[in-house]
Amino acid sequence: MVGITQLMEDKAFMAFASYSTIVLSKMMFMSIATAFYRLTRKAFSNPEDCGGSDKGENAKKYLRVDDKVERVRRAHLNDLENIVPFLGIGLLYSLSGPDLSTAILHFRLFVGARIYHTIAYLLPLPQPNRALAFLLGYGVTVSMAYRLLTSRLYL
Amino acid sequence: MVGITQLMEDKAFMAFASYSTIVLSKMMFMSIATAFYRLTRKAFSNPEDCGGSDKGENAKKYLRVDDKVERVRRAHLNDLENIVPFLGIGLLYSLSGPDLSTAILHFRLFVGARIYHTIAYLLPLPQPNRALAFLLGYGVTVSMAYRLLTSRLYL
Amino acid sequence: MVGITQLMEDKAFMAFASYSTIVLSKMMFMSIATAFYRLTRKAFSNPEDCGGSDKGENAKKYLRVDDKVERVRRAHLNDLENIVPFLGIGLLYSLSGPDLSTAILHFRLFVGARIYHTIAYLLPLPQPNRALAFLLGYGVTVSMAYRLLTSRLYL
Repeated sequence: MVGITQLMEDKAFMAFASYSTIVLSKMMFMSIATAFYRLTRKAFSNPEDCGGSDKGENAKKYLRVDDKVERVRRAHLNDLENIVPFLGIGLLYSLSGPDLSTAILHFRLFVGARIYHTIAYLLPLPQPNRALAFLLGYGVTVSMAYRLLTSRLYL
Repeated sequence: MVGITQLMEDKAFMAFASYSTIVLSKMMFMSIATAFYRLTRKAFSNPEDCGGSDKGENAKKYLRVDDKVERVRRAHLNDLENIVPFLGIGLLYSLSGPDLSTAILHFRLFVGARIYHTIAYLLPLPQPNRALAFLLGYGVTVSMAYRLLTSRLYL
Repeated sequence: MVGITQLMEDKAFMAFASYSTIVLSKMMFMSIATAFYRLTRKAFSNPEDCGGSDKGENAKKYLRVDDKVERVRRAHLNDLENIVPFLGIGLLYSLSGPDLSTAILHFRLFVGARIYHTIAYLLPLPQPNRALAFLLGYGVTVSMAYRLLTSRLYL
């Protein structure tokens, strides 16, 4: 088990593990937010979910689309679309022997940008708040991908 | 190549590899289920997909939304939203030297919960079957994230 | 840090790192394509995004669904649904000591299939171009999952 012990003693990898756990936990929070808005605003997608609010035919009126619920769902999907590349590229980047402070700067900027993106999406803040948060997170991932592709390419 | 050989000889990591392959295969099955319902119920999203069912203008009537297809797609998206955090957090957790039987219990509960979630979504079973399956999988991931953040935090 | 150096010297793992960075970069490009079509076709989901096009009440007419935008979004979601299993299964496969040329063949076919899938979706090319591209990428992932489950199962 020497290999694994060494892996978790590498500081860049440990930092990646910490920041990606935080950003994934934030993404999972979106599921709770969706459920919260669905329940408080009584807007469901499935007939079997409406039962708690009312009985019988009357329940069907809760099968509807709600603006706030859709907003949370779009924020959640945007998270998925951006965090999946971060996880894949960031994992490989953190294993490629980057400079530790540069790596931590990347991870911090990404996590900060995604948290700010969520706040800007849900409140909502006026543009370009959300657009800038998106672009910052995007730029961090592109920067890590660039380093990987220029230093470690093996095709 | 000593490092890699050691990695695949670590039991917690091998268990993670096995269970995550199973749960990802289950998720991939949702693509097949979507295609199956789209074809049998003739409900497509793209004009070019309708050609096999009919010709010319007549084909456009198949550009429609079908309840059963949408149900499979929601189950698929819910899988994505939950399996991505499990993969990221579970990978780091399995590398952090967890107790083997605790780790395997986590993986088994998660895989079981997601399979039951799919069954409850597609049949569908009455609530709270699906909600409980969702919460069980969610709780497993939160438990692994908690352990990572309390034992290995490096910010 | 011996373990990590060894990891990045393993050729199968380096090849996986290179190809998955490429396919993730391609997926990230879909975000740019969505933004491009939203802006040029003036079709937005959020009220706060419409401000740049027009002011006041008039801006609400841009809160609409556009065929081309929806097409890019479906392609993006399909990418997510297929690239997530590839990342998870491919990472474990590349660590399981596969034959190098077999592994590279898998990665190349997958990346080629997904790039062709995107082209076939966005142009669009007539079916079965897109269906075959999807099935090729799907088959590659299933083949890697099969190898993992038959050689390294630990439940």
